[in-house]
Amino acid sequence: MGCNPRYEILFEPVRIGPVTAPNRFYQTPHATGMGHLKPQSSAALRSVKAEGGWGVVSTEYCSIHPSSDDSPFGFLSLWDEDDIRDLAHTADAIHAHGSLAAVELWHGGAHANNRLTREPMIAPSAQPPKFVQPGGARAMDRQDIREFRRWQREAAIRAKQAGFDIVYCYAGHDYLPFQFLSGRTNRRTDEYGGSLENRARLLREMIEDTKDTVGATCAVAVRLAVDELHGPFGITSQGEGREIIEMLAELPDLWDVNVAGALGNDSKSSRFSLEGYQEEHVAFVKTVTTKPVVSVGRFTSPDTMVGQIRRGIQDFIGAARPSIADPFLPKKILEGREDEIRECIGCNICRSANNEAVPLRCTQNPTIGEEWRRGWHPERLARKGSEARVLVVGGGPAGLECAKTLGQRGYGVLLAEAGNVLGGRVSREATLPGLGAWARVRDHRLHMLGKHDTVEIYRSSRLGAEDVLSLGVDHVVLATGSTWRRDGVGSSVEVPAEIAGCPSILTPDDIFAGAAVAGPVLVYDDEHYFMGGALAEKFRLAGHDVAIATPLPVVSSWTQMTDEQFFVQKRLMDSGVDVLLSRSLLSASEGVAEFACAYTGRITRRDFGTLVLVTGRLAEQALFDELSMAIESARGGGLRSITRIGDCLAPSSIADAVHSGHKFARQLDLPAEAAVPLRERPFLPSGDRSWNAVRHVVDPVARSAKSVP
Amino acid sequence: MGCNPRYEILFEPVRIGPVTAPNRFYQTPHATGMGHLKPQSSAALRSVKAEGGWGVVSTEYCSIHPSSDDSPFGFLSLWDEDDIRDLAHTADAIHAHGSLAAVELWHGGAHANNRLTREPMIAPSAQPPKFVQPGGARAMDRQDIREFRRWQREAAIRAKQAGFDIVYCYAGHDYLPFQFLSGRTNRRTDEYGGSLENRARLLREMIEDTKDTVGATCAVAVRLAVDELHGPFGITSQGEGREIIEMLAELPDLWDVNVAGALGNDSKSSRFSLEGYQEEHVAFVKTVTTKPVVSVGRFTSPDTMVGQIRRGIQDFIGAARPSIADPFLPKKILEGREDEIRECIGCNICRSANNEAVPLRCTQNPTIGEEWRRGWHPERLARKGSEARVLVVGGGPAGLECAKTLGQRGYGVLLAEAGNVLGGRVSREATLPGLGAWARVRDHRLHMLGKHDTVEIYRSSRLGAEDVLSLGVDHVVLATGSTWRRDGVGSSVEVPAEIAGCPSILTPDDIFAGAAVAGPVLVYDDEHYFMGGALAEKFRLAGHDVAIATPLPVVSSWTQMTDEQFFVQKRLMDSGVDVLLSRSLLSASEGVAEFACAYTGRITRRDFGTLVLVTGRLAEQALFDELSMAIESARGGGLRSITRIGDCLAPSSIADAVHSGHKFARQLDLPAEAAVPLRERPFLPSGDRSWNAVRHVVDPVARSAKSVP
Repeated sequence: MGCNPRYEILFEPVRIGPVTAPNRFYQTPHATGMGHLKPQSSAALRSVKAEGGWGVVSTEYCSIHPSSDDSPFGFLSLWDEDDIRDLAHTADAIHAHGSLAAVELWHGGAHANNRLTREPMIAPSAQPPKFVQPGGARAMDRQDIREFRRWQREAAIRAKQAGFDIVYCYAGHDYLPFQFLSGRTNRRTDEYGGSLENRARLLREMIEDTKDTVGATCAVAVRLAVDELHGPFGITSQGEGREIIEMLAELPDLWDVNVAGALGNDSKSSRFSLEGYQEEHVAFVKTVTTKPVVSVGRFTSPDTMVGQIRRGIQDFIGAARPSIADPFLPKKILEGREDEIRECIGCNICRSANNEAVPLRCTQNPTIGEEWRRGWHPERLARKGSEARVLVVGGGPAGLECAKTLGQRGYGVLLAEAGNVLGGRVSREATLPGLGAWARVRDHRLHMLGKHDTVEIYRSSRLGAEDVLSLGVDHVVLATGSTWRRDGVGSSVEVPAEIAGCPSILTPDDIFAGAAVAGPVLVYDDEHYFMGGALAEKFRLAGHDVAIATPLPVVSSWTQMTDEQFFVQKRLMDSGVDVLLSRSLLSASEGVAEFACAYTGRITRRDFGTLVLVTGRLAEQALFDELSMAIESARGGGLRSITRIGDCLAPSSIADAVHSGHKFARQLDLPAEAAVPLRERPFLPSGDRSWNAVRHVVDPVARSAKSVP
Repeated sequence: MGCNPRYEILFEPVRIGPVTAPNRFYQTPHATGMGHLKPQSSAALRSVKAEGGWGVVSTEYCSIHPSSDDSPFGFLSLWDEDDIRDLAHTADAIHAHGSLAAVELWHGGAHANNRLTREPMIAPSAQPPKFVQPGGARAMDRQDIREFRRWQREAAIRAKQAGFDIVYCYAGHDYLPFQFLSGRTNRRTDEYGGSLENRARLLREMIEDTKDTVGATCAVAVRLAVDELHGPFGITSQGEGREIIEMLAELPDLWDVNVAGALGNDSKSSRFSLEGYQEEHVAFVKTVTTKPVVSVGRFTSPDTMVGQIRRGIQDFIGAARPSIADPFLPKKILEGREDEIRECIGCNICRSANNEAVPLRCTQNPTIGEEWRRGWHPERLARKGSEARVLVVGGGPAGLECAKTLGQRGYGVLLAEAGNVLGGRVSREATLPGLGAWARVRDHRLHMLGKHDTVEIYRSSRLGAEDVLSLGVDHVVLATGSTWRRDGVGSSVEVPAEIAGCPSILTPDDIFAGAAVAGPVLVYDDEHYFMGGALAEKFRLAGHDVAIATPLPVVSSWTQMTDEQFFVQKRLMDSGVDVLLSRSLLSASEGVAEFACAYTGRITRRDFGTLVLVTGRLAEQALFDELSMAIESARGGGLRSITRIGDCLAPSSIADAVHSGHKFARQLDLPAEAAVPLRERPFLPSGDRSWNAVRHVVDPVARSAKSVP
């Protein structure tokens, strides 16, 4: 099948200064949680993007100098020769598939923390750090600015040596060049402060310097936040954001524009934004420059993409998260398989990986971040290794992913779902306010399952151990999910609370099952991801008086990792939900809950009409226990394995459930060693124990002395 | 000078099972923020401890299996052959100085997060994760317990192969074996749950297994939290903690005991505990076992140490933080130089490094963590590289450290302090409640300065540019500190607030200068380290009505990194300080402050008698500017350099100020290259770009296929 003619415009080449992108698919820079400590993982991840058809593949933020260090988070660096060597692997891997390689040169200014290098931070004006830590940034003097310009030039040269085609001047996300642009953070009185022309001077010089240095062969891109959503205090797309583009319109070879301030504004989750949500802010850019423009907006629909081009919003389809959820998105459109796109659900689990300083994860794409260390490719699977037949019990995210992947490998699969609806928790959770896009986890897998006649799906089929054994399969995979606890044990509170069993005390399972809710509603959240906050929002939308209580000092604490916490708590407070913080549940009986202050232990009480306990979950493993007993008593027959996946092994995120299901399916009939991920780690000479660190410790100036002529 | 006979008891050898410690100084396991990703740094750090006379030097937590992964924090691992190779460097480095090497084998259970490996967590009973994250732990079945025991045995064998003398069974700090011990977390009904004997079964088996496996040549130590300070819900030193020791008294070769629950209870800061604060909980241990006992208590006084031995509290002087502040503490006592000990101030900056997942830092010892990467030794310095004379302006922590270190290198130094008190901010901040021990930063340096007649100290000597130039020195080092901002700009709030200049609105500088304070006092903290909370406490102790407001959701937010936040907020709340959270200062005039809710923007007002603004700080750089102008106008004469260090370069922690002063002094007259720290990073083949990751991506089963027979 070929490309739908309607979409062919997406595959036109686009000239960017001295280079040409083979098509309009532009993977904008995005974090991976890998950075300079995981060069092979990084290269493998970007390689897959290029193979999947992204005409431009960009790195994440790449520091130009040790005074911009984001440890322990996964940033790249171009400080020295070793960095060139490492990044050349990434550039080469991208080129191997005919795509252009872009590198996002980065200096964080007051938004770097320099925890590793311990260099003082620098900024246009003296200011406290943007991360909470003791150290503040010093104001750059003219000499510092000259030095900074030199770092950018030298890093650009190293980038070229590493083989990159596009070199960024990065004035987004509140990093150093942006700190110069914004009047919020630039309070200088010299030629780099005051008027917008002065505040934009450094960016102009950076672009000119970078072009002078590498512009003959490399395109020079500018990534600019055209609106920082700080209102009149900052850059706005109707005000100075527009003026900056007008002022520098033809200087760079490409404009990569977004809304920012904090990253949370740029990579806003689907709970708080729609596809294309940045358009209102960035649409003007193409009207004031002839240079190609790229922006983002969580685009997954080819028709929307074509609209972006035809309506003149941008020249490329910029994407970060959609390229993580489906690295082969462009190729699928090219081959007329757009129905197979694994659409980003906008849950921001990818952001959480970088925020937790570990490699990238994705709810939709379990292979992201696993390309090198497990050798997982998002589209290619080993053919089945035997004629084994597999029963998958449970049609939630883990079970669907497992059955789909086994089917793709060619195994004969029976998928049995107890209820009459497939999707498991995803089908329930997608009904919560703002989470509708999460249903894509189910829909994509059901669609793909429809293409493999090796998978038979049985709904309304609750199986007991004897049913399972009677099927005569070789492997049983249990994906029976989990249930919410009723004893008050959660992340912070380990000892069961005194909780009466009464109709007014419910769990999320009861709510999804349709239990009656009477106000005032009290949600108690000791889980701290989306559920507590989303249920509170749901009850409030239904018109109830609602309060949410939690042992932690903020609502939905873990959503800090998905860049959503501020938005969650703001929405709840704005809508009149009463927020009760730092309170641990001690007891609950009909109509009244008792809390202890997490700091002082002071007791408070709260009346409720309905109390919903969002605490821990327990794996649903009755069938596993039954089957294990059957096996032990030698009634297992020819059953070769019983495996739990997803929440019925250990309750976790949807992303972990999908990963767990994929892992089983990927691994079946392969040797166990293949399941152990490789680690990237520093090289030490083996065998020879003559440890070269001793030299430095014994003679602290030995290293220095080497350099003395 | 030899050892004071009173202290000779500290240098007696002590037998530990099959091995013998050369003395009683025992560096207990402590985190370094390095772990398996920084093997050379780790080895160098431990080497220096051994060289400094610690008879036993232990590693930090060392994972026995990928199901116990603490990424991104700096944990070690003994999962494979590469780990043995790396850790052998550490063991060898310790042995090179005649000390015993101990390794703390570790499994975190529900207290690991497995963010890197994505293995499901395991625990005695199903439970939500101890860190806030979506994933919970599954309950271990009998097969899991057998597997766990195998991992411990295999890791013990690897530890022995790496060369370690002491192998731990680690049942402390709420990790897996402790989760089995405590009734809070063990709700099993099989032979591993219920009675204490059952709950201790796994620990007993671990000890037996480890002894069976490596006990012939390696000592087997148990690290046990004898009280988790959870009251009757948990293990207590009068109850089950004592019973466990009684039950297993003679089984291990050594007992390493502490109070824990959370780590914050074990490594309690000096603000919340005194030297020897664990004694009341651990003193019983030696009465119920004949095996050697070690514990900790931030010991820095040799007389207190001798008391610990003579009074039969322990057989060793266990130390983590004091060994960081002064790796040469034992040797200094041995050589009769106990006056030179750099005493730990108990500020817990060391803890913050691990909590931020970066290498160790210390306020007192600027060389910790820098042994390998900068080649810094805590006690050895290069002799001066020239006859240059240096003027240091400012006698705070940066200036004192700089002058002291220059003096030790042999340089002629003038130290000029504007006031009549030396110590700068440390002398002021040590007057705050609980921070008295911080004065050791000043006292140690003044004492050491007294030993070097190359440093001349001038008090009450405020210098202008002309004064400086008239001195005819070669180098000027400015350590003039910082002042607190009065415009409301802080870590969270970038735009100056509308703040009237009036006598009731003060900064910490005014308070230290003796400004009158009238209640009610309102402290506004947008700095988030200790100052805001400590001032609120001070005002409350003086009898005022006090409130503390902050834009963040907790008081003294960054003290989460020093494991103090809970204690800070609890103390304030318990003492009746009113805590106003998530409020950003908009304006303040005589008597009233106006705040915006950090989430909703809703305006609230608060009356005050005195408002103290704890926000950002500004470098005190008037003298630098004057001198720079003088140099530019060619009036600089023979002056070769002007350098700012510490807070007058960029306001930060005391630790950073000391580090900055040390760095200048260490680096003077050495080539600039020596100042660039080395990085430990994964090995990639240079030159050859035939990237081996491609293989995995192109053929995802290539790796697996290798293992097929």
